[in-house]
Amino acid sequence: MQDLKGIDQRLARQIAFVLELEKLKTVWRRSFVIGAGRVENSAEHSWHLALMALVLAEHAAEPVDVTQVMKLVLVHDIVEIDAGDTYAYDAAGKSDQAEREQAAADRLFGLLPQDQARELRALWDEFEARVTPEARFAHALDRLMPLLQAYKTQGRSWQIGGIRPEQVAERIAPIADGSPTLFDLAQSILNVAAEQGFFEKSRSGKHPETFS
Amino acid sequence: MQDLKGIDQRLARQIAFVLELEKLKTVWRRSFVIGAGRVENSAEHSWHLALMALVLAEHAAEPVDVTQVMKLVLVHDIVEIDAGDTYAYDAAGKSDQAEREQAAADRLFGLLPQDQARELRALWDEFEARVTPEARFAHALDRLMPLLQAYKTQGRSWQIGGIRPEQVAERIAPIADGSPTLFDLAQSILNVAAEQGFFEKSRSGKHPETFS
Repeated sequence: MQDLKGIDQRLARQIAFVLELEKLKTVWRRSFVIGAGRVENSAEHSWHLALMALVLAEHAAEPVDVTQVMKLVLVHDIVEIDAGDTYAYDAAGKSDQAEREQAAADRLFGLLPQDQARELRALWDEFEARVTPEARFAHALDRLMPLLQAYKTQGRSWQIGGIRPEQVAERIAPIADGSPTLFDLAQSILNVAAEQGFFEKSRSGKHPETFS
Repeated sequence: MQDLKGIDQRLARQIAFVLELEKLKTVWRRSFVIGAGRVENSAEHSWHLALMALVLAEHAAEPVDVTQVMKLVLVHDIVEIDAGDTYAYDAAGKSDQAEREQAAADRLFGLLPQDQARELRALWDEFEARVTPEARFAHALDRLMPLLQAYKTQGRSWQIGGIRPEQVAERIAPIADGSPTLFDLAQSILNVAAEQGFFEKSRSGKHPETFS
């Protein structure tokens, strides 16, 4: 908002950050939005996780501060504005993911006034470290939702990506650290998905789309 | 998740609600996402407001519980899954908006276990009533963001909708109740937008798109 004369400098930095956040609406994930025929962006994904936190908190492995979980998931993908979304099953992309995301965090949270930059950076660091019960539960939600979406779209993203059930099993394993109940649910869903043939390549002819 | 045998009934209701939330990603607003050439959906909009709450809370007219503001904005548009997004400048749509949204709230929050249905309904009722400082601040954010988007897209949604500056002035007036500071900012933006000709019909030839 440098085009507005006389705006307080602290407010100007806050608004610059708010405007920068807009870009997360154009970071596309690999998960399909159920019933929508398109992939999901990281902003709407983050909203969904925040409401999941509110509704599913009672299933956390340890008692959690629900509002802290909400903050963690609202902030967790902001670095993707610079670093992009790294596909869960992309080993090459994962090799330099941490480095790219640290640089992104420096720049993006650095748009804010210093005290708020520290506050939001601390939220992202907490999410990444997965040490607190809140961070572990936040990760559990972040792993559960793509499974629900894949299941409800008959494995569409798995077929396009050529993903095998063993890879999904590995991907959902950390849910156990955040919520044994949700991990049981995730395992049941994966089993039913495999039984129903959602991983079978022969089905992929129905879904000629690629990620773009 | 009625297709999963043996799932606890309380968890089943919670997951049914989580899956229903997916539909808010397909409710389209009139505001254009800056730099994206498409309109915004209500899910990504809600995420944006929650982070605005976190970053801008110090500008609230009265001290607010930031986490309560975040909850209010995360929940505020869920009723649109059934009731649709009512355009801010659509007088006809507004005439039965309250009735449609009450029915939507009954059905959607009613998917949850009773205690949580009450909790989320109370959040939505609080937002709608605009009595608490948190609700007034939440409304201020909800009015500010579309103005920022219209300004940063050179008035695109205003030109398509044939909106006049006086209508925008009326639309942003309630920001004053939630945050005098953000109201001052909004007025400055509106003035600059009008000066720069963002309301002039002659510009609309550059933006032949209609809302669809």
